[in-house]
Amino acid sequence: MQSVFSITSSGPGLYEFTDEARAFVRKSGTGGGLLTLFVQHTSCSIVIQENADPDVRRDLAEFFRRLAPHADQPSMGWIRHRTEGPDDMPAHLKAAVLPTSLSIPIVDGKLALGTWQGIYLFEHRDEPQTRRVVAHISS
Amino acid sequence: MQSVFSITSSGPGLYEFTDEARAFVRKSGTGGGLLTLFVQHTSCSIVIQENADPDVRRDLAEFFRRLAPHADQPSMGWIRHRTEGPDDMPAHLKAAVLPTSLSIPIVDGKLALGTWQGIYLFEHRDEPQTRRVVAHISS
Amino acid sequence: MQSVFSITSSGPGLYEFTDEARAFVRKSGTGGGLLTLFVQHTSCSIVIQENADPDVRRDLAEFFRRLAPHADQPSMGWIRHRTEGPDDMPAHLKAAVLPTSLSIPIVDGKLALGTWQGIYLFEHRDEPQTRRVVAHISS
Repeated sequence: MQSVFSITSSGPGLYEFTDEARAFVRKSGTGGGLLTLFVQHTSCSIVIQENADPDVRRDLAEFFRRLAPHADQPSMGWIRHRTEGPDDMPAHLKAAVLPTSLSIPIVDGKLALGTWQGIYLFEHRDEPQTRRVVAHISS
Repeated sequence: MQSVFSITSSGPGLYEFTDEARAFVRKSGTGGGLLTLFVQHTSCSIVIQENADPDVRRDLAEFFRRLAPHADQPSMGWIRHRTEGPDDMPAHLKAAVLPTSLSIPIVDGKLALGTWQGIYLFEHRDEPQTRRVVAHISS
Repeated sequence: MQSVFSITSSGPGLYEFTDEARAFVRKSGTGGGLLTLFVQHTSCSIVIQENADPDVRRDLAEFFRRLAPHADQPSMGWIRHRTEGPDDMPAHLKAAVLPTSLSIPIVDGKLALGTWQGIYLFEHRDEPQTRRVVAHISS
């Protein structure tokens, strides 16, 4: 069973879609199986992270902003791919370090997430985007 | 077929559980399939790494300690999430960079690991923990 | 259904094998399913990245060269695992940060890659290598 989630973003950061994933699993009627999520872009990611303190998401975005700063920063003078703006190549770098696909077991009809785990689209571009995540359930 | 591995850790570093994974695959009687491992936490990871020289694991832990130092280090003054101790937010950062889920093909009834590959829980917290890894076999 | 792709590399960088993956999916006759790719090594990775501007791949390789420099560089004096040359431990570090396995949904008989997504072996060693990627299709 397959579906596509459409997620809109407005700048770098984490956008939760745990509820959409849970609803898809419920609707599928799967008892035991595996949900795989795959993002069809090379400048955003999908991550599982803490869903309690919002500061965790803020610190995550800040860490990756420091790990791969915009191409107009002095430390990034070596970047060649600059045609799509200073946030573009760093977005590809973050997309390489963070997951493009994730798989979560379904146990007793429910996603086997830990207590503090939420599922997020991690946007790396500055401008608003509409992102596609393909969801697949295997038995 | 599904199972849960319980892995205890005592500080940052890599804890091998290749044997548990192999035993689960053997017990399942699967000829050809896919083993997916999923860790139910946001402050540890699962990785596949070299199982020969222990210095490789030591260097890996050291690299990540330097990539995301404790929050009480001068370079980490920008961190906001500090309520659970100086090792907590860096643990979330490492958990974002390293895998939460991994999938390994099963070929002729055996995990298709390369000669030097072992499966490890990568602990990022300082205090001892008991970690849960959910294992799922798809056909 | 399973297969093994053999990919030869000649130094650090990204080697595309999207066509091999598509051909395997086509040959399998799968309508809807999931392709999982798993690399049997701990010093190279598999990534999905932009397949348009070659500068993106060049910048990616350069970013990781800077993130984990060779062990004979001054900033890497802390590395202990040195028996296989100055490019070896940094290759393991990159292999930890980048994916060992990836899963891509198959929709209507085709890999559900986004417009700009290609599948690459990311080589981290300096010397030429022959790498094995195990491919598995689940329903």
